[in-house]
Amino acid sequence: MKLITTFLLSLSLVYNVQSQDNKSLKTSLEKVSLEFSLNNEGRPLYSVYYADKIVIKPSALGFTLADNSAFDKNFEITGSETSSFDDTWKPVWGEVSSIRNHYNQLTIHLKQKGSNKLMNIIFRVFADGIGFRYEFPRQTGLKYFIVSNELTSFNMAGDHKTFWIPGDYDSNEYLYTTSKLSEIDNKPVVDAATSIAVRVAPDRYAVQTPLMMKSADGLYINIHEAALIDFPAMQLHVDRSNYSLTANLVPDAVGNKAYVHAPFKTPWRTIIVSDKAADILSSKLILNLNEPSKIENTSWIKPMKFVGVWWEMQTGKSTWNYANDADTLDAYGRLIPNGRHSANTTNVKKYIDFAAANGIAGVLVEGWNTGWEDWFGNWKEHVFSFVTPYPDFDVKELSRYAASKGVNIIMHNETSGSATDYERQMDTAYRFMNKFGYTSVKTGYVGKIIPRGEHHDGQWMIEHYLRVAQKAADHHIMLDAHEPVRPTGLQRTYPNWLASEASRGNEYNAFAEGNTPEHETIMPFTRFIGGPMDYTPGIFKIKGYSNVPGRQVHTTLAKQLALYVVLYSPLQMAADLPENYAQHMDAFQFIKDVAVDWDDTKILEAEPGDYITTARKAKDTPDWYIGALIDENSRSSTISLNFLDKGTKYVATVYADADNADWKDNPEAYKITKYLVDSNTKVKLTLAKGGGAAISIKPVTTTDKGLKKYK
Amino acid sequence: MKLITTFLLSLSLVYNVQSQDNKSLKTSLEKVSLEFSLNNEGRPLYSVYYADKIVIKPSALGFTLADNSAFDKNFEITGSETSSFDDTWKPVWGEVSSIRNHYNQLTIHLKQKGSNKLMNIIFRVFADGIGFRYEFPRQTGLKYFIVSNELTSFNMAGDHKTFWIPGDYDSNEYLYTTSKLSEIDNKPVVDAATSIAVRVAPDRYAVQTPLMMKSADGLYINIHEAALIDFPAMQLHVDRSNYSLTANLVPDAVGNKAYVHAPFKTPWRTIIVSDKAADILSSKLILNLNEPSKIENTSWIKPMKFVGVWWEMQTGKSTWNYANDADTLDAYGRLIPNGRHSANTTNVKKYIDFAAANGIAGVLVEGWNTGWEDWFGNWKEHVFSFVTPYPDFDVKELSRYAASKGVNIIMHNETSGSATDYERQMDTAYRFMNKFGYTSVKTGYVGKIIPRGEHHDGQWMIEHYLRVAQKAADHHIMLDAHEPVRPTGLQRTYPNWLASEASRGNEYNAFAEGNTPEHETIMPFTRFIGGPMDYTPGIFKIKGYSNVPGRQVHTTLAKQLALYVVLYSPLQMAADLPENYAQHMDAFQFIKDVAVDWDDTKILEAEPGDYITTARKAKDTPDWYIGALIDENSRSSTISLNFLDKGTKYVATVYADADNADWKDNPEAYKITKYLVDSNTKVKLTLAKGGGAAISIKPVTTTDKGLKKYK
Repeated sequence: MKLITTFLLSLSLVYNVQSQDNKSLKTSLEKVSLEFSLNNEGRPLYSVYYADKIVIKPSALGFTLADNSAFDKNFEITGSETSSFDDTWKPVWGEVSSIRNHYNQLTIHLKQKGSNKLMNIIFRVFADGIGFRYEFPRQTGLKYFIVSNELTSFNMAGDHKTFWIPGDYDSNEYLYTTSKLSEIDNKPVVDAATSIAVRVAPDRYAVQTPLMMKSADGLYINIHEAALIDFPAMQLHVDRSNYSLTANLVPDAVGNKAYVHAPFKTPWRTIIVSDKAADILSSKLILNLNEPSKIENTSWIKPMKFVGVWWEMQTGKSTWNYANDADTLDAYGRLIPNGRHSANTTNVKKYIDFAAANGIAGVLVEGWNTGWEDWFGNWKEHVFSFVTPYPDFDVKELSRYAASKGVNIIMHNETSGSATDYERQMDTAYRFMNKFGYTSVKTGYVGKIIPRGEHHDGQWMIEHYLRVAQKAADHHIMLDAHEPVRPTGLQRTYPNWLASEASRGNEYNAFAEGNTPEHETIMPFTRFIGGPMDYTPGIFKIKGYSNVPGRQVHTTLAKQLALYVVLYSPLQMAADLPENYAQHMDAFQFIKDVAVDWDDTKILEAEPGDYITTARKAKDTPDWYIGALIDENSRSSTISLNFLDKGTKYVATVYADADNADWKDNPEAYKITKYLVDSNTKVKLTLAKGGGAAISIKPVTTTDKGLKKYK
Repeated sequence: MKLITTFLLSLSLVYNVQSQDNKSLKTSLEKVSLEFSLNNEGRPLYSVYYADKIVIKPSALGFTLADNSAFDKNFEITGSETSSFDDTWKPVWGEVSSIRNHYNQLTIHLKQKGSNKLMNIIFRVFADGIGFRYEFPRQTGLKYFIVSNELTSFNMAGDHKTFWIPGDYDSNEYLYTTSKLSEIDNKPVVDAATSIAVRVAPDRYAVQTPLMMKSADGLYINIHEAALIDFPAMQLHVDRSNYSLTANLVPDAVGNKAYVHAPFKTPWRTIIVSDKAADILSSKLILNLNEPSKIENTSWIKPMKFVGVWWEMQTGKSTWNYANDADTLDAYGRLIPNGRHSANTTNVKKYIDFAAANGIAGVLVEGWNTGWEDWFGNWKEHVFSFVTPYPDFDVKELSRYAASKGVNIIMHNETSGSATDYERQMDTAYRFMNKFGYTSVKTGYVGKIIPRGEHHDGQWMIEHYLRVAQKAADHHIMLDAHEPVRPTGLQRTYPNWLASEASRGNEYNAFAEGNTPEHETIMPFTRFIGGPMDYTPGIFKIKGYSNVPGRQVHTTLAKQLALYVVLYSPLQMAADLPENYAQHMDAFQFIKDVAVDWDDTKILEAEPGDYITTARKAKDTPDWYIGALIDENSRSSTISLNFLDKGTKYVATVYADADNADWKDNPEAYKITKYLVDSNTKVKLTLAKGGGAAISIKPVTTTDKGLKKYK
């Protein structure tokens, strides 16, 4: 990530020591404005406006510390500063090739009367929202301390429509519920979510961020956090009467929230706001609040598509485990194979061949290493070896074979939640990867965490995930973390951490009741606000799996293609089996073509829970890709291609739902059409119920002769 | 540890499937007998006799499991076996050169009616007590399970005199209280023990093992455990009305006791019993219940004496930390030295010189590595670097210098309780030791444990200490663990784990109110039953430290010498400063001479809380050493030297309290006398209040001409 332009518009270090006269401090940028004040009790309050509409009513800030001291009142302002910043930077990979970071900053220096404890609050006001963080400077009043509670609140101006998942400390693999703030109650949702193994949601009125809301007067508001480092994840407790949200930090094993050593800065609390839903999706506020890359040489970091030995286990065709049971041993104490183990040399070569034949860079192989016979549900500390393949997986030969075909095998390190054991083995595991040419690793945390009593989203695990990313970076290994905390833009700082799961992926369509068609219309407004997700799109055989009878993916085939554009990830799986793709190689062409790194992105239309249409320009090419998707309804709309280069002629290949397609009864029906288009073209898209459309747009070539113009 | 003789006297595998008729099963050896039965509820009960005296009245056995299932009743016996074993083995190091392991074994196979869960109970009856353990065989009824409580009880036959410390989950650094069982109440003890930083003793009627008792009818009874592996430490809850003790396992962060994967064997629960106190001290029952060495090549394991840069910090002359505060930084961000840091190259060389001049093999250096400025009390996870010396400690030069003098520097790895961080660094730390020629490490766990919520004596930490010992063994490093769980004889299995602290050491005389004179007369009956302790004897300057005014070691100088014999450890420190030894080089001669590895040991007289006199024969020499020590009283006794070789003339050098010596007012007064002795000699020892005596006995040489015979 290189800084290309840094021009400080104005840096005014106005250090105002002012009397405590409840005078408010304000700053704004374009339509967004921020006001800060202390009330008569010395409580810090802030409020946020979007043009003339109130986004956050005056809301409290502060903490309770573990020594039973309130750290949210009796403050005085000892000074304040304002400054402006405008900078454009280039991400290593992403949705756009350059990002403007433009904000006005207001820093408030607070001292608590009596205790002499110091705290600064730093606000950054962007054109599309605000971020603020607490800073504990080096001081005598606070050195090492424990946070019992963060008291940050967000007093909403009305009973907004809200897209939420339960405030679960260990899982975010829920479907979203759409309700008014006043109607939030996660208990029935948690109780019903039996396909999620570890559910710990003690507060029935708590929800997770990114929390997406829509006000009755048309504001789209998203609350989340940025740069979550050395601190627990923030969830939100809902006061249903007052439409007030309060920070609810995920606790540790003994009920504390965070162990802090001053000087320290908390993660940023973020509020993205606009009167257009599309602006929420294109916001770069979260990335801008993260630090630039700490990895200097990023040349080894390469976005990629991949296939994998995975969906066949999800659908029950084969198994991760080599033997049926850890106690199934022969006379020599060796596991007796069950004959259904898919991570075997022959099968993996089949996937390598398919990847090589179709220009897919990676092959994920799960179930290659010992430990899968009793890996889950025992809260067992030492489960897996990360360097010991099962007897039928020839790691050396497969390394050689993959390299000869120009394909990378993706390492899989499932920890079953035993983070302590993974930390013990990590060094060895990464040296093993380096030795055998693995350039990326998919980690997993399915199960209750060890250290026991810790949660997936508590401070200890937040630090763990980052230790893994840093250690991986030291070994030039790219990371795709499954079941970690949801992202907060750290991919800017650690660009080798390409993607995470941290949400309810496509896999739930195989092993559980599945996802709703609207799920993918909400996730970009929620989970994806923090960063890329390894959602595993691309399922072409949508139903009829003999081992999961009655189950199907709640999608049309065309919608699976649209996901590659709408759901951004630099790691994007083509999740189905080679033999299922072989039935639809014309549609698979889109997956072969679509990019995983982009120069530009346009959100053409969007409404959370209803529909999204996204256009992206592939990195270093003139090619554009469009994905459109819909909830359980059908929809037609017309999109303008006015983002194309003026005067260039393009060929658009449209992968659409067939006229009689329907996610439920006729999901695999699609049609592919080609047209000549240009920047004046308007394309009419008709999406089936639960359907989608994908379009590739490339400059016309001599082979495209005879194509008709779109009309 | 090589087996030298293995002769199975009788191995009778009598597998009796018997009806449940409450018939009892019995086995015995010499005076000790054991009886097992099921009562009408199917509860397993055992009782123990010593000759005709009852040691343990019928007492319950079993568990409660975390799925709320009682696992202590409704059992039926599906079979039983008896066998006998008699074997003599050689420890790698120890108090004697060979150990007889002779027992009769009774194995009971139990099945719980209804649940079909299986459990075996294995009893071993020795001439000096019994051991028993639970075994969960491979089965379908129990695979992975969680132990909520162990229900093993020890119903004592009377209101015995008991030597106890509180059932604290995190510390055993208490003085012993002597009381009747009915009077045990640890709360005032715990409340008063303010010099122990981390005290967690939720049950005021719980005590720790080894628990030493004496019955009114003259039985000495010691309860402990052997081979504590993969299980929490057992403490004992006291029912003061019924004189009944019940196992109280140290819980984990969420209140569970143990995570078990069948097949599994618990540690042995042990009862040593005799009508002679000396037999308790010479018992090898705990060692015999541990497995033989898992380390094949033990040639690198070498007991040794050592001096160290340590007591000068304890007494306030100098500091572990390099700067006064972690925030005391110069303009370049470097720590500003406080000028009192003792682990500096020059000072360490002084200790190396002293060690080399006096034949002392090791020099411990504490405070050499970064992190000491704010190491304690912050529950901080990353505190120390174990490979980064302070700027004034030249690790390369000191390695060279020590090697040139034939001295080993002993590594110090204080973790401040952050076991997770130590596990992350351990590989690197031990490679660093190998690189710079360190052959042993002293670890430390001062502070609250991380993983937070875990305790020093819980299952997770038990596994941690063993991981450390195993990793150290892999690197040919000897281990001396401070603040770990108290030992249970694992030094047989991991003979590189030479010693532990795990009790209240001599150091308390420097930084706290100190130890009572009786302390060292109780510890051999309690703490030392499990294994060697690094007590750090040898303080010659007993009071008058300017930085700890008013404090003194509660001892005479002669008693400090006696400790080298009475308190067995293969790692034995000469803890005082070289300049203090320089004042008494005649007395220091005993420390130079005394061995740390022995061919034989005789407990000449002993009474817990009152006095102990121990004679030991130095390994591979004809030399004997005697240590005698006393509580706060004075005492005279006559000891026979009839253990000496008949017909050999020896010279005895007696280091005794001076006539006017007294631990309180005249502690440094001693006298040294030499005599000719032989196996017919009887030596009269007169010990001052809180005093002691030490004797070296060597075959007479030509330089001993003119010595008088003892009379």
